[in-house]
Amino acid sequence: MLTNTGSDRVRSVRALSRRAVRQREGLFLAEGPQAVSEVVTHRPDAVQDLYFEARGLGMEASTRQPGSRQVVTRQAAVLEAARERGLSIREVSHEVLVAMSDTLAPQGLLAVCRPIDVDLDAVLDERPRFVVILTHVRDPGNAGTVIRGADAAGADAVLLSDSSVDIYNPKVVRSTVGSLFHLPIVTGVPAATLLDRARAAGLVLLAADGNGDVLLGDIDLSRPHAWVMGNEAWGLGADVTAACDAVVRVPIYGKAESLNLAMAATLCLYQSAGVQKHSDIR
Amino acid sequence: MLTNTGSDRVRSVRALSRRAVRQREGLFLAEGPQAVSEVVTHRPDAVQDLYFEARGLGMEASTRQPGSRQVVTRQAAVLEAARERGLSIREVSHEVLVAMSDTLAPQGLLAVCRPIDVDLDAVLDERPRFVVILTHVRDPGNAGTVIRGADAAGADAVLLSDSSVDIYNPKVVRSTVGSLFHLPIVTGVPAATLLDRARAAGLVLLAADGNGDVLLGDIDLSRPHAWVMGNEAWGLGADVTAACDAVVRVPIYGKAESLNLAMAATLCLYQSAGVQKHSDIR
Repeated sequence: MLTNTGSDRVRSVRALSRRAVRQREGLFLAEGPQAVSEVVTHRPDAVQDLYFEARGLGMEASTRQPGSRQVVTRQAAVLEAARERGLSIREVSHEVLVAMSDTLAPQGLLAVCRPIDVDLDAVLDERPRFVVILTHVRDPGNAGTVIRGADAAGADAVLLSDSSVDIYNPKVVRSTVGSLFHLPIVTGVPAATLLDRARAAGLVLLAADGNGDVLLGDIDLSRPHAWVMGNEAWGLGADVTAACDAVVRVPIYGKAESLNLAMAATLCLYQSAGVQKHSDIR
Repeated sequence: MLTNTGSDRVRSVRALSRRAVRQREGLFLAEGPQAVSEVVTHRPDAVQDLYFEARGLGMEASTRQPGSRQVVTRQAAVLEAARERGLSIREVSHEVLVAMSDTLAPQGLLAVCRPIDVDLDAVLDERPRFVVILTHVRDPGNAGTVIRGADAAGADAVLLSDSSVDIYNPKVVRSTVGSLFHLPIVTGVPAATLLDRARAAGLVLLAADGNGDVLLGDIDLSRPHAWVMGNEAWGLGADVTAACDAVVRVPIYGKAESLNLAMAATLCLYQSAGVQKHSDIR
């Protein structure tokens, strides 16, 4: 069991909370039972090292919520799955796990992972039915929640422009609640290139914007398409909306000025799912 | 202009960040141009005192984003509207505004407000078409975002059980982005009473739950109804689902385990809006 919180290993894992270190090392952190379970199940190839605290919840025990028993059970299931896949597993003390983690409550599990993003070509070659393109999305929680919503809606991919938040930011990883490992994600491509290439691949480009001139319910979603979402504060730039085939707005029935990015994206993507996938949901 | 950050007034305003003080004083804070604009416009009766910083953005200027010019313009518009309504307005220094506020960036405006929640009877007497009932929702951001989504979807009210987060928590107020002042909100009633009274008023009770046996698209939403949402981590208790007429789930098309509370609520409420309000949206 690793117990030295000051070791080089602990410091190098902890340093992955910083973007520059993640980029230099080509590694990132997945923390907690949910994220670690999903990467072990869906992307075991991405796991470099898995660390676990045998006591399971450590100091968490004193503040247990209903469901904490399931956390312990889940940890055991994750470790079993990791062993079956031949992954590198190390037991650590509670203190070491906390020292490695970006969060105060890693809940017994942490994995050091290799990037899981894929090439734009690979996504477009699969002839996606609908995807979401995030341009200049900066808030980690928003980006992660959109990825979670895209997964739930059955989108075929999420494409992030190079000006968007780093998807390996621990806050993004946490807020995807495992969805980061469920669907293809493209990063690091300029927004203009994403739009050009998506169109060339036959996708209709739909800008989602509160000032759009077409209502969500009035747009034809039966053709393959990409939802283009902008920055949470400024929306989409004029260059981006000009490059799209339609500018679509979610109707506001009450007095709210707007919906937040994740809510708007989820409504748009579920509208797509309803049209594209209605036959395979039960 | 008030410049003494140590004055009794500043301390008593700042203390409203604490629930016990809010309850004792019967007051709460609305911070920033959006929230203050909405309370001045929609609920001027609730404004006890409005504080503004003449320079508008103060220290914010050094970190301005696109749109900050609009913030200054907006502040002027808010002050003009407040004057027209005869509200109490005081100019304060930047330091005083920051000292009064729960946030680091109050952006030039802060209002001390009286509670805006309404009686359950008043809501039910209006024969609502659809409402949302929040039971045991504890996270301020989630509660606020659901209120925002309910407003956007045109819900007729939001009813929070007495075990839910205080809607006057500054984080709730902020995350409603003004919607707190747009639609009737009921608080402080036990969940069981909310359900009993809603049913007695003729509302169909629809529990939203990831384990529901009816899909969102399959439920009849043409009758008046209440969406019943549970705690973000544990979901709905068995007693609550047993008291409802149907347990409805939002379909998950991909591999995501669940949607978060705000996303699920927004999808359910927009489904209601599409059925109940389709004729009056353009």
